[in-house]
Amino acid sequence: MSHRALHLIARPDGTPKDSDFEMRESAPAALADGQVRVAVKYLSIDPAMRVWMSEQKSYWPPVGLGEVMRSGGIGEVVETKSEKFPVGAWVSGMTGVQNELVSDGKGLQRFDASKLPHPGWALSVFGATGLTAYFGLIEIGAVKSGETVVVSAASGAVGSAVVQIARNLGCRVIGLAGGPQKCAYVKDELGADAVIDYKNEKVSDALKKHCPEGIDVYFDNVGGEILDAVLKRLRLKARIVLCGGISQYNAGSEARGPANYLSLISARARMEGFVIIDYLHRSGEAIAVMAPWAQGGKLTSKLDFVEGMDNFPEALRRLYSGQNFGKQLVKI
Amino acid sequence: MSHRALHLIARPDGTPKDSDFEMRESAPAALADGQVRVAVKYLSIDPAMRVWMSEQKSYWPPVGLGEVMRSGGIGEVVETKSEKFPVGAWVSGMTGVQNELVSDGKGLQRFDASKLPHPGWALSVFGATGLTAYFGLIEIGAVKSGETVVVSAASGAVGSAVVQIARNLGCRVIGLAGGPQKCAYVKDELGADAVIDYKNEKVSDALKKHCPEGIDVYFDNVGGEILDAVLKRLRLKARIVLCGGISQYNAGSEARGPANYLSLISARARMEGFVIIDYLHRSGEAIAVMAPWAQGGKLTSKLDFVEGMDNFPEALRRLYSGQNFGKQLVKI
Repeated sequence: MSHRALHLIARPDGTPKDSDFEMRESAPAALADGQVRVAVKYLSIDPAMRVWMSEQKSYWPPVGLGEVMRSGGIGEVVETKSEKFPVGAWVSGMTGVQNELVSDGKGLQRFDASKLPHPGWALSVFGATGLTAYFGLIEIGAVKSGETVVVSAASGAVGSAVVQIARNLGCRVIGLAGGPQKCAYVKDELGADAVIDYKNEKVSDALKKHCPEGIDVYFDNVGGEILDAVLKRLRLKARIVLCGGISQYNAGSEARGPANYLSLISARARMEGFVIIDYLHRSGEAIAVMAPWAQGGKLTSKLDFVEGMDNFPEALRRLYSGQNFGKQLVKI
Repeated sequence: MSHRALHLIARPDGTPKDSDFEMRESAPAALADGQVRVAVKYLSIDPAMRVWMSEQKSYWPPVGLGEVMRSGGIGEVVETKSEKFPVGAWVSGMTGVQNELVSDGKGLQRFDASKLPHPGWALSVFGATGLTAYFGLIEIGAVKSGETVVVSAASGAVGSAVVQIARNLGCRVIGLAGGPQKCAYVKDELGADAVIDYKNEKVSDALKKHCPEGIDVYFDNVGGEILDAVLKRLRLKARIVLCGGISQYNAGSEARGPANYLSLISARARMEGFVIIDYLHRSGEAIAVMAPWAQGGKLTSKLDFVEGMDNFPEALRRLYSGQNFGKQLVKI
């Protein structure tokens, strides 16, 4: 099998285009001692990818032009010169957008795919996505049982985990999603106490209705107008967890700040950003809490597949346009 | 002496105009038992006044149309039916914009004017202004010795206290002010390690030069473009203390949010608002720390006077246009 990899060849202007990438083929490399060959099976499509493609300062350096596009992924070991990774083992890590990864094993974690409903769960609730929801709520949001939690993009990968984790922690949860299908999912399958269809309702009015005493924790996945509406409904000492600003990632110099940010003053509230890589060393702690929820049917995960590595740019665009329904993956 | 009071009669559209107020005279009220008559001597002109004049939700209700304009102030007791407040005593409190206050003493604090270089210090470093600087730095900013602190409006009332308190706590302090005169004051008299003239320098370049390793704490008195520039230079785990957004108070619906707020994510930083009234019960603690600094010449206060209650609107405009130099007071 030849090595196929998708290279970033241009910095996107706005939404990423097919022509920002180029597929290159090469002969597979031979393994050195200690190395392992992974057949990459699924890629995790994440909002931060848009940042990695730009020249913006971030917790990782930008992907260089001409380099293989960065991506989290999972796959199976198909050839090995490492005792830690036998053939047939499933691993997760930063695989990049390629069909095969040759690695010395650094940064790769083995996981037992047979214990998951689908191997892709290792990229959703039991991967960085679920950990983002967990530590964002616990550490940055400092949520307490009985508090009112609002989450945007509630049908999305992180959002759907936030809804369920907050519910399991005893919070009242209001989720925002776009369209009746996603809203029904958030309420009926994820168990949100209320849901707001931001495409068909006035968000500020709906927040007023569903959060009559204000919002304690807002888990922000999108920024933009929803953040501004939330700022107007903060309870005293509220916490805004900044996980991403997906509505702003493609905006370039037109990025819009939250005009109502001064509400943080009268509410004595805070807005705090975090990056999940700071908490990855505590993933065992989160999984120990979440695994029983999953076994008890109180934590589920929806996966959304795009087939084929050539469709990686399209998978990205699905994410930014909100077409995805659940955690967006690419199946290789 | 007749009672003269300035009433708010219109909600300002943009910068407050003289015609938003009306001076009304009336016969002085007789004192009931337990009451005290205070001749108001100085009014404290504060950025938050613009908020009180609007219909905006705040930590205090809006000043009602037709009501006496709210203001902090100090004065001398001239007539008393209260044992707690003898004639000749100096008091501070929310006096309102009037030449005389009749009060049951609730909310009034006595202070010893003879121990201050000027009674007006009770409205600056030893009043809400100085306490705002102190608790903003200590509690919200969580400053530590050796950290880099940036403060906007550094020649202003709160800002000049922030510069000096941060210096006394062992921080490196960079102050922003407008024009050579104010900048010289911040550096030479307040002791900032560096100063940035935001009217004549490119703030982002100057921040890069003076904070090569980034900013640990930003004490924000102004919002606007300076906040955006600071967001680009945050150090990991930085704290932004939101004390006010003076550049935005008069902006109405044009208020502009910080476009670079997503930098909070990669810096794992937080932006937090606070209101000094939450800390007034701890003022003794702050004054115990600051009084020795003042006695040792390490904490000073510049006062800027406008004469006459009729010029209250003008004093407000001086504040918003940055014409004031030091704590803006009105002398009655």
